[in-house]
Amino acid sequence: MSDGFRFEVRHRDARTAARLGTLTTPHGSIETPAFMPVGTQGTVKGLLPAQVRDAGFGLILGNTYHLALRPGPDVVARHGGLHRFMDWDGSILTDSGGFQVYSLAALRKVGEGGATFRSHLDGSLHEFTPENVIATQEALGSDIAMVLDVCPPSTSGRDELEHALDLTTRWAQRAVAARKRGDQAVFGIVQGGLDLDLRRQHAAAIRALPFEGIAIGGLSVGEPPDKMYPVAAATAAVLPEDRPRYLMGVGMPPDLPRCVMGGIDMFDCVFPTRAGRNGLLLTRRGRLVIKNAQYRDDLSPPDPECGCPVCTRYTRAYLRHLFVAKEILAAVLNTMHNLHFYGELMRRVRAAIVDGTLPELAAELEAAYPRDEAEGDSAGREG
Amino acid sequence: MSDGFRFEVRHRDARTAARLGTLTTPHGSIETPAFMPVGTQGTVKGLLPAQVRDAGFGLILGNTYHLALRPGPDVVARHGGLHRFMDWDGSILTDSGGFQVYSLAALRKVGEGGATFRSHLDGSLHEFTPENVIATQEALGSDIAMVLDVCPPSTSGRDELEHALDLTTRWAQRAVAARKRGDQAVFGIVQGGLDLDLRRQHAAAIRALPFEGIAIGGLSVGEPPDKMYPVAAATAAVLPEDRPRYLMGVGMPPDLPRCVMGGIDMFDCVFPTRAGRNGLLLTRRGRLVIKNAQYRDDLSPPDPECGCPVCTRYTRAYLRHLFVAKEILAAVLNTMHNLHFYGELMRRVRAAIVDGTLPELAAELEAAYPRDEAEGDSAGREG
Repeated sequence: MSDGFRFEVRHRDARTAARLGTLTTPHGSIETPAFMPVGTQGTVKGLLPAQVRDAGFGLILGNTYHLALRPGPDVVARHGGLHRFMDWDGSILTDSGGFQVYSLAALRKVGEGGATFRSHLDGSLHEFTPENVIATQEALGSDIAMVLDVCPPSTSGRDELEHALDLTTRWAQRAVAARKRGDQAVFGIVQGGLDLDLRRQHAAAIRALPFEGIAIGGLSVGEPPDKMYPVAAATAAVLPEDRPRYLMGVGMPPDLPRCVMGGIDMFDCVFPTRAGRNGLLLTRRGRLVIKNAQYRDDLSPPDPECGCPVCTRYTRAYLRHLFVAKEILAAVLNTMHNLHFYGELMRRVRAAIVDGTLPELAAELEAAYPRDEAEGDSAGREG
Repeated sequence: MSDGFRFEVRHRDARTAARLGTLTTPHGSIETPAFMPVGTQGTVKGLLPAQVRDAGFGLILGNTYHLALRPGPDVVARHGGLHRFMDWDGSILTDSGGFQVYSLAALRKVGEGGATFRSHLDGSLHEFTPENVIATQEALGSDIAMVLDVCPPSTSGRDELEHALDLTTRWAQRAVAARKRGDQAVFGIVQGGLDLDLRRQHAAAIRALPFEGIAIGGLSVGEPPDKMYPVAAATAAVLPEDRPRYLMGVGMPPDLPRCVMGGIDMFDCVFPTRAGRNGLLLTRRGRLVIKNAQYRDDLSPPDPECGCPVCTRYTRAYLRHLFVAKEILAAVLNTMHNLHFYGELMRRVRAAIVDGTLPELAAELEAAYPRDEAEGDSAGREG
């Protein structure tokens, strides 16, 4: 176990697999279940670190793929790490970059050694190996690093899938062996698509390794929630009780209580920040498309039930004006509100665990946020 | 004189025409000489109001042309005015929109009645008259309104120029007659190009009207500073001692002490905010083009002599990374720094009046900010 990293389960829901916990890293403690805002390139887009903190977050996600390509881990390391580079004094989890290699870069080849790809920025050739992504994340100095995994296409056949899982397991073993820093936690990743047998089999392999936490990867890549929730829950059920479980790239508002009910402790998703930049405001009653003409004269706050700095100061008419006029402040304020909405949502999720009312909260969110088919693919991770 | 508006000269420089004063509006007092950040469309681009205030400003400029077209004065008025629309509790000066009609819109016709033009946004036809721009600014609820003036092309012949001045004077008289609000100051505008006789003649006509302050328009439109400074000073010299003098659309850093030495009290210019968005950081030692490769590894703050929230938290390497990665936060932080630079610069200008060292400060800024010819036209106003 790494120095300064601790996870404690404080309370378990009687009716579901949900649990309340505290996750401690060298940069502080946060309550779980927790949502991590995505700070892809060393910034949660549009916000100052203090604004992210004020929205209720003490742990954010950084993207190793993006930071490795630009500005490069050497530049970040010279600052003493990502925290000081971006002036964030809370905790940081960095992903391994695997997902982006498979989704964003021009993938060249996945072999036993690692993955070679061309940068989406300038076409330059790079290789990610289980060892060098750990080294890169150690240079970035994140509190939690992720292992490099293989993300096979969802159209893969069973043989191909099993080969990918075996390779992911061997890479996980190599990642463990590559660790040099004592003050950074490393999480393994369980893959296996929507196949429960493969998931359980892979979970057994990954849980046997000395990881401080375990992530569930390869979900929220287009499948409907009804298919995703049972896989997340069944996988979580065979993970160690005493380690945090992180569902990568999830989720939309209803996903959060639903997957918490399945035993998930950590989430990340670009949805609240990306939606904000696109003028989509999240409220207790559902989405609000701020550019709509109906808001031209609307003097009410974005969400009358929200106490955030945006809702207490600005009207829908003002936010519509900023968005239509393509003002930078539109992205800033919309992102700020949406992150406050997510911060408050996670507080409600944690309170509902104590109260035993998670199913009711999930139903409320499903009513307010009906799954829009067009949105299925757009959620999830930066990639 | 309007309720709640007061201007007091507290100190006069012994060697120059510079003066220290206090300008009071219904939204507070500010020290002059003062610089007004430009908040064209109901926001100082990229910043929250508190960030503008923290940079040292209590008075900002709003653009009537832009706000009249979008969102429309009715929307702003329904909020109780521009202050509440944009959540700015300091003072606001709105321009009349004249400059934008001549520079940005498709101008159709300037006649005795007013100016007709087509919107640059949607081609719709509009008319600005001396009366309706006062009414619009009363609806916006700014603390200081400007009269509609005629801005003749700089290539105009003497006859054309004299006709424009006469029309500007008649429009100024109509603006005075059109005033309805008792809590809003109105400033007249002196035109006259680079012709000192015409400037003095027009100043005499405008100073005879009951304006709370007087602006000098039609400068900083491409002429070199050496031509501009004497005209500003000669015009200021024939303006009333007891009213504030506002040099519109000026200035670059060296312009500020130079024109203060000529007796100017107020300035506005898009330079610091626009430069910030373009990745140009202003420092005591001159411009810093943040995208340059030399800053990739530079761990020093943007300006080692600056104590602003950007310089105390971030490195040049981080700001370069944000700019190159096209992150929203690049515009936010660069603008924040540049406005702090201007806030500090105005504090130094005011201190130099007390110390009698304005010429030395002007020389220092001229060395740090040599006039770049390509920049001549880009300074000034939103238009």
